[in-house]
Amino acid sequence: MDAPRLRPRSEDAANATKVNLAELTPSRDRFLGLAAYLQLTLFENLSALVAGAPTIESKEALSRAVAVSLDRYQRLSEEIRRTGGEPSAVMAPYTAGVDFFQSVTVGSSWQEGLVTSHITAGILDDFFALLAVGLPGAEAARVKEIYAAGSHESLLADQIRSSIAADPTLSSRLAMWGRRLVGDTMLVARSALASEAASSPDESRIEPVFTELIAAHTRRMDALGLTA
Amino acid sequence: MDAPRLRPRSEDAANATKVNLAELTPSRDRFLGLAAYLQLTLFENLSALVAGAPTIESKEALSRAVAVSLDRYQRLSEEIRRTGGEPSAVMAPYTAGVDFFQSVTVGSSWQEGLVTSHITAGILDDFFALLAVGLPGAEAARVKEIYAAGSHESLLADQIRSSIAADPTLSSRLAMWGRRLVGDTMLVARSALASEAASSPDESRIEPVFTELIAAHTRRMDALGLTA
Repeated sequence: MDAPRLRPRSEDAANATKVNLAELTPSRDRFLGLAAYLQLTLFENLSALVAGAPTIESKEALSRAVAVSLDRYQRLSEEIRRTGGEPSAVMAPYTAGVDFFQSVTVGSSWQEGLVTSHITAGILDDFFALLAVGLPGAEAARVKEIYAAGSHESLLADQIRSSIAADPTLSSRLAMWGRRLVGDTMLVARSALASEAASSPDESRIEPVFTELIAAHTRRMDALGLTA
Repeated sequence: MDAPRLRPRSEDAANATKVNLAELTPSRDRFLGLAAYLQLTLFENLSALVAGAPTIESKEALSRAVAVSLDRYQRLSEEIRRTGGEPSAVMAPYTAGVDFFQSVTVGSSWQEGLVTSHITAGILDDFFALLAVGLPGAEAARVKEIYAAGSHESLLADQIRSSIAADPTLSSRLAMWGRRLVGDTMLVARSALASEAASSPDESRIEPVFTELIAAHTRRMDALGLTA
């Protein structure tokens, strides 16, 4: 079973809130540094899932999810290098915050880790794709394309559904875990906003973005048969 | 400092032993199944190094090594799918042996893990590139190209040299660990040979291949300043 297609609705929302969103977009370095390091972290989490996968079929499928995330990370790094930046230097200010985010969302089982990757990647990739609109010049379109190229959403959703089918008692624990992830993920997303917007937020401008992210999250959880 | 280029010499050896080597090449499924699963394991090991990297610079550099290995794995999988095979099914017969190999070569520190990835990838990628000569038709050239595309050799060597520069007392332990890896790596390479060759080996045919692999290994250790 395929997951419902979420992109079109997110893109509608992007158009509706486009003007306001561009004002929330942080500096190029802040956007790319945080987005790249988050993607590197998603890549690490997905790789750990490959290593811990219970079957060779699952290992094989998850390796394709890793490739999507690693490709995104590499393209974000190239975007940093394009103007002479060094990815490690541009990411450095964000490692402590993201490492903390990773440590509190790591999950206590392989299945929870799977939900973490699916839910946090879903929210954060949607978020950075929306926020890219305010990047300078042609970079906005290039970065949007990085998030549009490939998707591990259905690969990860399939693995979660298989896990639940094999052990239906997982369902309530994973639903709880999915709900638990939202707060931390929204916090890390919020930390990306232009510093003026983050420090004295105009909530009326920020709220529609987060409402849309939550709506996409709810659809993602529904597609897993889990209550958001 | 770049590592000395090893490929040309390996290719000379490939030509010299080409006739004999083709007779050692196993069936297509055995070659691709074992080669793909070993590459997936190398990818897992490299990913763990990214996760455990002590600095963001090192994480960044190692993520590029992961990409090389993941790309090889994906292209070997495509090669399996090309004739309707399912990668997980074709790899399945080799998982137990390779998982054992992984468990005995895992190393007890991040630096040992780095040496494991560098040394085992060096030997095994050279070996499968040589052995590809006996694959049917155009597949021989395609598979050889998979191993020729990109290299993480100098990336990994740089990381090892930096580790030793930061703590020169590591040198003797890593040299010992490097020597320790060779036996297990040669055993797993040998398990790839055509079953007739493996069960009643004509040592005079096999020996030159392993001599060449050991010579390349020695050059690799020399380039690290370690005694092989």
